[in-house]
Amino acid sequence: MQHFEQLFTSFDPAKAEIAGAATTQRFLSDLRGCFADGNAYDAALSSGNPPIYHVASIEPGCDSGDLHLGIGLVLPGRIGSEYYMTKGHFHSWREAAEVYIGLRGDGVMLLENESNGQCQLLPLQPNRIVYVPGHTAHRTINIGAAPLTYLGIYPAKAGHDYGASAARSFRHVVIERDGRPLMLERSTLLL
Amino acid sequence: MQHFEQLFTSFDPAKAEIAGAATTQRFLSDLRGCFADGNAYDAALSSGNPPIYHVASIEPGCDSGDLHLGIGLVLPGRIGSEYYMTKGHFHSWREAAEVYIGLRGDGVMLLENESNGQCQLLPLQPNRIVYVPGHTAHRTINIGAAPLTYLGIYPAKAGHDYGASAARSFRHVVIERDGRPLMLERSTLLL
Repeated sequence: MQHFEQLFTSFDPAKAEIAGAATTQRFLSDLRGCFADGNAYDAALSSGNPPIYHVASIEPGCDSGDLHLGIGLVLPGRIGSEYYMTKGHFHSWREAAEVYIGLRGDGVMLLENESNGQCQLLPLQPNRIVYVPGHTAHRTINIGAAPLTYLGIYPAKAGHDYGASAARSFRHVVIERDGRPLMLERSTLLL
Repeated sequence: MQHFEQLFTSFDPAKAEIAGAATTQRFLSDLRGCFADGNAYDAALSSGNPPIYHVASIEPGCDSGDLHLGIGLVLPGRIGSEYYMTKGHFHSWREAAEVYIGLRGDGVMLLENESNGQCQLLPLQPNRIVYVPGHTAHRTINIGAAPLTYLGIYPAKAGHDYGASAARSFRHVVIERDGRPLMLERSTLLL
């Protein structure tokens, strides 16, 4: 339990950086399997390995009542017709929810419930809140022309499960059609 | 457990309002006992009962992994030399932490640890984060000339204990001296 040590910090909502926190960068090569259009993915990767998103977090305590806070930035871009996005994850502790707060840019979150299969595509924009309940895989997607940045707050013991929620376990894909995002079942895609 | 109902909303960072959430207003008369200078309090109350702060919250779920989110606005002003502030509270579930995010204005948070008596005065400003650990009474104080607004995210089962943490249990007072906030032990005040 951390008391009265570093209990305050600042963040940059445009750069998605937290003072004193290390940033983890994810490149296109880290997202193998996430994009449904494998040909478009291979073609993009053959001409470079661009950064797609980065995250940073602070973990002030690890007791049962503690919270962690992360900040993220997803760059604008597409692989074929699919927008740049995060890998997405479940929480290892499945009951753990997460509060997302949009800071900059224009995004959506893809939510897929593990228990009942329901899914939603919700707007993530400045001054908007998305509540990710427990048992829900969630992914952040940039549908705009500028970087998308956001905060996420979650129970300290949530943990991140990228294995169960790797791209293949998302049953839906978000593509650009006529300038707007469209959510489709992955199985219906003819690529 | 609430799944896939109202999982997104918006907030107004200037007005400290959340779409769809009721706002609770606190007036000077609600803060009896909070200000150390009883004479200044009575004098202020005799000439009116101004609003001091208001809060609103959303509670999307109440399971062990759920989170709640609140928004607050403290008006600028003073009672004697003490700044306008919130009542302050512990969490009923003492282990529960809280993440505060500054939105507008210039504020500080007074933190007093129940276990070891340590206290801190931390800045609460736009793009700044204050982490309130468990077992810590916390109060928000506006030291600026404009409204102070902020978000707070906490475990759903945190609860609010205003009884134990009513003003009298804060051992420190924050006053204005030479234009800046000064934290003093309440017992040392000669009013």
